[in-house]
Amino acid sequence: MVCKEKTLESEYIYKGKILSLRKDLVSVKDGNTSYREIVEHGGAVGIVCIDDEGKVILVKQYRKAVEKVLMEIPAGKIEGREQPYYCAIRELEEETGVISDEMIFLGEFYLSAGFSSEKMYLYFCKVKKQGLQKLDGDEDLEILRLDYEKALEMVYNDEISDAKTAIGIMLSKKYI
Amino acid sequence: MVCKEKTLESEYIYKGKILSLRKDLVSVKDGNTSYREIVEHGGAVGIVCIDDEGKVILVKQYRKAVEKVLMEIPAGKIEGREQPYYCAIRELEEETGVISDEMIFLGEFYLSAGFSSEKMYLYFCKVKKQGLQKLDGDEDLEILRLDYEKALEMVYNDEISDAKTAIGIMLSKKYI
Repeated sequence: MVCKEKTLESEYIYKGKILSLRKDLVSVKDGNTSYREIVEHGGAVGIVCIDDEGKVILVKQYRKAVEKVLMEIPAGKIEGREQPYYCAIRELEEETGVISDEMIFLGEFYLSAGFSSEKMYLYFCKVKKQGLQKLDGDEDLEILRLDYEKALEMVYNDEISDAKTAIGIMLSKKYI
Repeated sequence: MVCKEKTLESEYIYKGKILSLRKDLVSVKDGNTSYREIVEHGGAVGIVCIDDEGKVILVKQYRKAVEKVLMEIPAGKIEGREQPYYCAIRELEEETGVISDEMIFLGEFYLSAGFSSEKMYLYFCKVKKQGLQKLDGDEDLEILRLDYEKALEMVYNDEISDAKTAIGIMLSKKYI
């Protein structure tokens, strides 16, 4: 039986725009204590969207945290008390211009549970209508479309290195 | 063409045990600037290990950041300049007592590239010898063994909610 760690003390180090950081003193086994550094994050969604030609819509984006351009499924942060389902519809339209009103839930995953509270909700959908991108001022995205089988092969060959994208593409197989 | 974001200013907010936090002022498109909150993390490994009966070895662990017990593949943080391959051998033995000297590389993934530099290196291996667990003082792990097909089904049914575990189990299919 794995024991819950009780919080003995908790201190915020930083409260920011997309994340906050706190340090908790917790009870661990044998009556000992330990510190846990915890990043609080409000959660996010990722969408595997397939167009009329069976292609997956991906976005290329510079990620400062890893100093690289990554190939990812459209994704974004949940705003306040927004429902993940509606967040997925909103983010897909903002990043790609694609309008879809039916999202199939693929699963929810903790990305880095050792230190981060971030949960990723993944959806699958098909393009219903193509509109225009509505990017935030600091977003710079390039859209590309890949055959689903090619994208899956790239996950297996380690050519797609974003975790949510790998999970989403692999889980979508049964809907293709 | 997606542009690289140049660092204009960079400030450390926190330097900790498993992570550090900094805030960068960066150049974005159209000559504008924006802040990026970045968690620095030294990377980690995760291991899909199969025993003589074809079962996957998993660990159950309380994760303070998400306030839940999660079912995960054995995993751990890379220490200093340690090679991921040797880190995988070490972590597997520490967490499960399993000794394996041949790790097959499955892939490397950024878990949350929007704010975190953490890269996860995934490996597949078979049990060579069973020894004893060597846990850190603040680690409390319960080991369980699941048929590979059962574990895969649990990923598809959203009963395994840890990202590295989901990716590792799905990518291992060809070695089973």
